[in-house]
Amino acid sequence: MDNTARLLITCPDKPGIVSAVSTFLYNHGANITALDQHTTGPEGGTFFMRLEFQTPHLDLSRSLLERAFADAVARQFSMQWRITYAREPKKIAVLVSRHDHALLEMLWRWSRGQLPGVITMVISNHPDLEQAVRNFGVPFHHVVVDKNDKPAAEARMRELLHGNADVVVLARYMQILSADMVRHYPGAIINIHHSFLPAFVGADPYRQAYDKGVKLVGATAHYVTEELDMGPIIEQDVVRVSHRLQPAHLRELGRDVERNVLARAVKWHLEDRIIVHENRTVVFN
Amino acid sequence: MDNTARLLITCPDKPGIVSAVSTFLYNHGANITALDQHTTGPEGGTFFMRLEFQTPHLDLSRSLLERAFADAVARQFSMQWRITYAREPKKIAVLVSRHDHALLEMLWRWSRGQLPGVITMVISNHPDLEQAVRNFGVPFHHVVVDKNDKPAAEARMRELLHGNADVVVLARYMQILSADMVRHYPGAIINIHHSFLPAFVGADPYRQAYDKGVKLVGATAHYVTEELDMGPIIEQDVVRVSHRLQPAHLRELGRDVERNVLARAVKWHLEDRIIVHENRTVVFN
Amino acid sequence: MDNTARLLITCPDKPGIVSAVSTFLYNHGANITALDQHTTGPEGGTFFMRLEFQTPHLDLSRSLLERAFADAVARQFSMQWRITYAREPKKIAVLVSRHDHALLEMLWRWSRGQLPGVITMVISNHPDLEQAVRNFGVPFHHVVVDKNDKPAAEARMRELLHGNADVVVLARYMQILSADMVRHYPGAIINIHHSFLPAFVGADPYRQAYDKGVKLVGATAHYVTEELDMGPIIEQDVVRVSHRLQPAHLRELGRDVERNVLARAVKWHLEDRIIVHENRTVVFN
Amino acid sequence: MDNTARLLITCPDKPGIVSAVSTFLYNHGANITALDQHTTGPEGGTFFMRLEFQTPHLDLSRSLLERAFADAVARQFSMQWRITYAREPKKIAVLVSRHDHALLEMLWRWSRGQLPGVITMVISNHPDLEQAVRNFGVPFHHVVVDKNDKPAAEARMRELLHGNADVVVLARYMQILSADMVRHYPGAIINIHHSFLPAFVGADPYRQAYDKGVKLVGATAHYVTEELDMGPIIEQDVVRVSHRLQPAHLRELGRDVERNVLARAVKWHLEDRIIVHENRTVVFN
Repeated sequence: MDNTARLLITCPDKPGIVSAVSTFLYNHGANITALDQHTTGPEGGTFFMRLEFQTPHLDLSRSLLERAFADAVARQFSMQWRITYAREPKKIAVLVSRHDHALLEMLWRWSRGQLPGVITMVISNHPDLEQAVRNFGVPFHHVVVDKNDKPAAEARMRELLHGNADVVVLARYMQILSADMVRHYPGAIINIHHSFLPAFVGADPYRQAYDKGVKLVGATAHYVTEELDMGPIIEQDVVRVSHRLQPAHLRELGRDVERNVLARAVKWHLEDRIIVHENRTVVFN
Repeated sequence: MDNTARLLITCPDKPGIVSAVSTFLYNHGANITALDQHTTGPEGGTFFMRLEFQTPHLDLSRSLLERAFADAVARQFSMQWRITYAREPKKIAVLVSRHDHALLEMLWRWSRGQLPGVITMVISNHPDLEQAVRNFGVPFHHVVVDKNDKPAAEARMRELLHGNADVVVLARYMQILSADMVRHYPGAIINIHHSFLPAFVGADPYRQAYDKGVKLVGATAHYVTEELDMGPIIEQDVVRVSHRLQPAHLRELGRDVERNVLARAVKWHLEDRIIVHENRTVVFN
Repeated sequence: MDNTARLLITCPDKPGIVSAVSTFLYNHGANITALDQHTTGPEGGTFFMRLEFQTPHLDLSRSLLERAFADAVARQFSMQWRITYAREPKKIAVLVSRHDHALLEMLWRWSRGQLPGVITMVISNHPDLEQAVRNFGVPFHHVVVDKNDKPAAEARMRELLHGNADVVVLARYMQILSADMVRHYPGAIINIHHSFLPAFVGADPYRQAYDKGVKLVGATAHYVTEELDMGPIIEQDVVRVSHRLQPAHLRELGRDVERNVLARAVKWHLEDRIIVHENRTVVFN
Repeated sequence: MDNTARLLITCPDKPGIVSAVSTFLYNHGANITALDQHTTGPEGGTFFMRLEFQTPHLDLSRSLLERAFADAVARQFSMQWRITYAREPKKIAVLVSRHDHALLEMLWRWSRGQLPGVITMVISNHPDLEQAVRNFGVPFHHVVVDKNDKPAAEARMRELLHGNADVVVLARYMQILSADMVRHYPGAIINIHHSFLPAFVGADPYRQAYDKGVKLVGATAHYVTEELDMGPIIEQDVVRVSHRLQPAHLRELGRDVERNVLARAVKWHLEDRIIVHENRTVVFN
């Protein structure tokens, strides 16, 4: 059994935070096995910390430990914080349209134990990928999106997702989610965009990249916010291209970048390595 | 002595081009030592070719060979073409402001024989880098740019450049050249922009990159056209960054990318490896 | 229909080769659409060329064209050469043990049309991957390797492969092939080794890499020769690692490099982009 | 003034270390601004920590603080530890032969403030680089190495280095240091080797790489131990190469990797980011 717990903290920086947190944990029998911190500046800056500790020798139940932490430490430093437990893996729902590469990469990594969560379902606005998904033993739901009644489709999706999704991954889902849907999953919808954002926002970025004649094409995983393709960036990568490649070749090369970038971003989210702050991410990896 | 000549060709694609060109050269005693071609499509596309040949056994003088090529081959295929000779290295003028990294990288590579041209001068709107340039035995000209009389500064620069510059390299020159100046050196002004274009056009791209929270910062070498930061891209590269880095650190890391990207682009230009076509570059490297 | 043919040539370098080849093709109605050449030196060196041409307007049948080429061009320049046709895709047999990553990457790319060949079978010394292979509609053969009678296993494999394999891909096949088997498929067995060769030859290279404390781990695709892990290298790549990673993590990261490196190498082989010369490869990509 | 101090710790892992260290520092007025830790395993493993703290509000002098830390914390956890102060930058001596690239990169970065130390001298067994070094205002010593009396040369070098070198950087110094010399600077001699170690130990690694036909060439910065090219690796990087490149081109491309890898390794050493443990390095960067 994996007895790891993770504590994530954001607060105004000031002296004594590390001492207070680590001493609290030590006194309650938690053994710190990883600690990473970041500050935007020791005077008046913001402090971020991610800490892993082992729970077998805790002298309190989880709920009492969390209450004690709130009282003894968090309040004093005005912390935003959360504790998560590796034993309670996050539930993942994947939304996809027709392109299978990002989806299959996730399913394949997950089936090998490389994505520490539970893929509870795949939802698609097309029926094409049903068999590929079922091969992994994952439920597949086909939710048709009628252009004239998008709210109906989202309502159906919300019904399916209810209680079954801690994080929603858009693995090349080509529909734009409504602001209402986005607000329902704050900081919990991850999209893969097939360009090095902020270059080539919007439709057909590989065609845009070809027309511009760039020498690298990229992909960007980011949290979804109400503004299209503008949410906090989690991870990016690029691959070298040349004048020889037509847009179709850029798409082919780009797919390999997309699936790796998305898989890394989702893994970090599942391991609670990401803190969002002012439209930027702190990624403790 | 380097007896290499280079032939660059752009023309409508149709059968028989390679045969016609290579047979013409063979018949006149030229030995082809490198050949690279590209077509945007065999039916109705555009054909590009770069060819290196050795001149010692030519049966014609250069001027007669070129005339014969025009008559025997180029006209028939409606070619745009040029022949250049490694023995006649291009003259390079470098424009710079205060940042020395891109300039020094060029001077250093040039001093070791890695940039096959002649750096005839460095022009700067600041006096700071004079000694560093003179250490390489290169003339340095300080041309003050008066905000209220930019044409005077450009006139002075044009005077210095006249007859001494086949290519003008902007190695972090922070003044915008006038459209008139740009038109005077068509396809012969190379700029290094400190971002992965088309992301972060304009001023202080590292600050823009920081604010956006990107996970890679880059640099772009491109030909200068009248539209700022929008000319044909020659080369780009990126380096991985994290949330830990402030804009000042991005600048420091970015400098290493800038100087390498610019040095590669200038080298390719000097070796006649680049053909510009419809705001995109074909780079035979 | 894909009417592309590919001509690969190795011969002593001397003037006139490009002219002779391209003129021969032009005269017989072949339209050259790609040409790449390499020479180890114009005086006394070896010349390599890869050429793609379109066949619809050929004035001869294939066999007559090849005979004419042999007589009119190849003999004169002492060429080793071959012509292949995109319409006749190569037959691929994959050998694998228990690790599925390199195999699945190949099957997945092949199922999307990104590997231009026909995967005729997968052979394994373990039964584990049968269902995963059958999901792609590919025959799976379990050939047990008895430590005390390896020849029997190889005989069975040879029987299966006979007539069904132009190339044999070892996608993490953990048995060493006999010299006899290797000789049977000269230049046609491709292996993925999980290190940056020549570092870490032999067993458990990730453990070796961990013990050595390297900061990058890699993978190498190479043709198999009788000397273990020493055949001509086709492709290599690496990924950055740190002191934080245990051997198990190196394996996980390395898998992603392995599958991409192998997929690229196999693709280049299928597209006839590789010429082997004195234990090194010329890769026209 | 930079008031940063750095505390480096190696000790057997057990609960309470972070709490003890951070509480000690907090109680004495030190403000922790960075903390990084690593453990090879919470049960019976080794614990490593690097911690930056600000000194302005310390309630003790340095020497008293260090004594108090030894008594109150270090003994209890059997720590190997050291505290260094950014205000006391390390003294750097560079040894070089004829290749200037790694040396100039260091001098250039140092002259811009990017290498936080003091380059006190350059020693060379050749006179060639004297002027280049003096341009940076750094003393240059030519110490001839007589093949028949190496000890004399090393004695002269030791004399020059005495009191003037906290770290000795071999920036392509082509002489092998004696075991005696190496023992005199334990963990304080950094070498750049022009290959991806452990591949291509010894002489002319680019020729070895060419002969092997590798597709990437690399460089390795490592601490020098008595066994040639076998000391703990600090940093490595590679660059892609192709069949087109002769050994001379590999050298040219490799130089860019060498100078960057060495510069990064030296910087990390100067910032006390490296802990050596059993011939491997922990690099907190």
